[in-house]
Amino acid sequence: MTLRVLAAALTIVLAATCWPAQDALPASTNVPGTDYPRIHPDRRVSFRLKAPAATSVKLQTLSDGLGKGPIDFKRDEAGNWNLTIGPVRPGFHYYAFLVDGVQVNDPASETFFGWGRESSGIEVPAKDLDFYDLKDVPHGDVHIHAYRSGSLGTFRSAYVYTPPGYDANRSKRYPVLYLQHGAGESERAWTKQGKANLILDNLIAAGKAKPMILVMENGYATSVRDNRAGISIREAFDKLVSQELIWNIDSSYRTLADKDNRAIAGLSMGGGEAIYTGLKHADLFSWVAGMSGGTQLLDLVPGEAGRAVALRFLKLLWLGYGTEDGGYPAAVKVHRDLEPKHVPHVWFETSGSHEWQVWRKCLYELAQRLFR
Amino acid sequence: MTLRVLAAALTIVLAATCWPAQDALPASTNVPGTDYPRIHPDRRVSFRLKAPAATSVKLQTLSDGLGKGPIDFKRDEAGNWNLTIGPVRPGFHYYAFLVDGVQVNDPASETFFGWGRESSGIEVPAKDLDFYDLKDVPHGDVHIHAYRSGSLGTFRSAYVYTPPGYDANRSKRYPVLYLQHGAGESERAWTKQGKANLILDNLIAAGKAKPMILVMENGYATSVRDNRAGISIREAFDKLVSQELIWNIDSSYRTLADKDNRAIAGLSMGGGEAIYTGLKHADLFSWVAGMSGGTQLLDLVPGEAGRAVALRFLKLLWLGYGTEDGGYPAAVKVHRDLEPKHVPHVWFETSGSHEWQVWRKCLYELAQRLFR
Repeated sequence: MTLRVLAAALTIVLAATCWPAQDALPASTNVPGTDYPRIHPDRRVSFRLKAPAATSVKLQTLSDGLGKGPIDFKRDEAGNWNLTIGPVRPGFHYYAFLVDGVQVNDPASETFFGWGRESSGIEVPAKDLDFYDLKDVPHGDVHIHAYRSGSLGTFRSAYVYTPPGYDANRSKRYPVLYLQHGAGESERAWTKQGKANLILDNLIAAGKAKPMILVMENGYATSVRDNRAGISIREAFDKLVSQELIWNIDSSYRTLADKDNRAIAGLSMGGGEAIYTGLKHADLFSWVAGMSGGTQLLDLVPGEAGRAVALRFLKLLWLGYGTEDGGYPAAVKVHRDLEPKHVPHVWFETSGSHEWQVWRKCLYELAQRLFR
Repeated sequence: MTLRVLAAALTIVLAATCWPAQDALPASTNVPGTDYPRIHPDRRVSFRLKAPAATSVKLQTLSDGLGKGPIDFKRDEAGNWNLTIGPVRPGFHYYAFLVDGVQVNDPASETFFGWGRESSGIEVPAKDLDFYDLKDVPHGDVHIHAYRSGSLGTFRSAYVYTPPGYDANRSKRYPVLYLQHGAGESERAWTKQGKANLILDNLIAAGKAKPMILVMENGYATSVRDNRAGISIREAFDKLVSQELIWNIDSSYRTLADKDNRAIAGLSMGGGEAIYTGLKHADLFSWVAGMSGGTQLLDLVPGEAGRAVALRFLKLLWLGYGTEDGGYPAAVKVHRDLEPKHVPHVWFETSGSHEWQVWRKCLYELAQRLFR
């Protein structure tokens, strides 16, 4: 009996000291062949950097979901710097390392354009959610679509998702959702960080969303001339979308090219762009959505007849927010004020702050309501 | 007269000390809004990193074209570390910074998957070459094509270039070139580092190449089971291509699905994969090419009848090399030995070493000869 108790105790001690790392798995966002960062079953995350000559290594958390940074690593005798944090929130989080004060990428991580540069990112699995997982269902393609903007005098790349079957059904036409990233991000964000293509693949396979095309462009479309003339980011993007992008997409892809089959949505800065452009062009869009942004544009004051009128022509005004987002209280107020003004809209809120997990959920909810 | 000479001398002194940076432009590979790295008209390159607390910053050159590294930066009073190198060779070069001994990315650079991680890269313009420039010609799309490999039990992403007009001409079918990256790179390399899509856009616009589809997959296709069984990278990739990828591409895109309309090429490790798979499956490929790699597979010894026979069924065996590549002398020997063995092939050589500028030129030359 004593032996069995001893053996059990030894097992527990061993498990606590030697084996926990065996349950932790390298993050899916790591580059191939790297062991760290590792994610533990309880969603703690272990980071490691080999830097024998450094005097200080810290984790810079670039998303609320990882907690408040910077956080100090500890150096071991082999010159590895180690840190375990959390449990952290599920979803995608940006981060960086501070090596002797310089903010750099984790060499073991894929990079994701955010915060105005290629940043490290980590995908923390959510056990109870699978709507954005890569599943064995038919998959659409994501096209890197190059086109020339005459007004900007430059070439641009739109990321365009075509739904499963697009290439096989050579005469079918599809509705289009224009979908914008946030500040400091790029046209790559909605597929790479947001998994928008997988969300649509899964929704379409389950019959929960109509097959649709997604068009993801870069929200920064200000030319040198625009800058000189004081044209805002929002106005410049509006000009690009309304005068060039829609025309280009409708002539390059098999779209249903009318307002009732055209939606615009975006997150944060992109939410402002979507609501601004959507309401300015009631002739172009019938479906408009803002995620964690743009809501303040709906804080209609007397005299703003234009937007109020535009709202009446919409089939859907959709607003989504994370309840822990700094902008949530103000957004809720706008949402509540819209009711007595008889502006019909859908309000969606979910746990989370200003982060991709919220925007993935927003797209999942929004896409099911579009074009119906 | 003396005054004019003085003024001229002063102008030269000023130009040499104060103004040269004005002629230098931020590299096209920088993230938006960054001033460094900057490229001077004479192809010197200036790097800068703000790192007041670092004790050492060095440039790690990851391509011969930037010269031999590491090279020390010098710190200024503001805490910026500065370095000017070169003149360097035109083309695309990988690089990294060593901050107190840790190899990290330049935060101001886009990242490019090479050397097994997301690395910094710099595009140095070539004044006398424009075949890979983004021009005002019709552009094809690059598709991120997700598909499931039954044998690997995983999803994979192929990058697929469809030529201009692919979506408009809904019944036209196209020949296919399978095009592989090198060791430590990924399926993204040929378009991102190599500009393969722009090379084809320009060739097709000039009527110099037949419109074709490019399929760029990840050359690492070894499963856990393969690893246990000692299956090599080359054999694993061969299995994926010959048993799954071709079938998937032919059923997903409007291809001309026969050997005379199917080519395979690759660079370095990918050259070995292309020549191995191309010659092993004379029923699948009529056009086979190796760039800076794979040539040694053609060093036929008596008894290797299979490969010798396969060569007779080819429409083209194409070999390309940079004359400063470490593997060049051995490759030239194989090329010369093929002549007396009556193995018809095209040999292409150009200045440069084991670098993307050579492989861009290889693709430019090769694509003009395919499917004719």
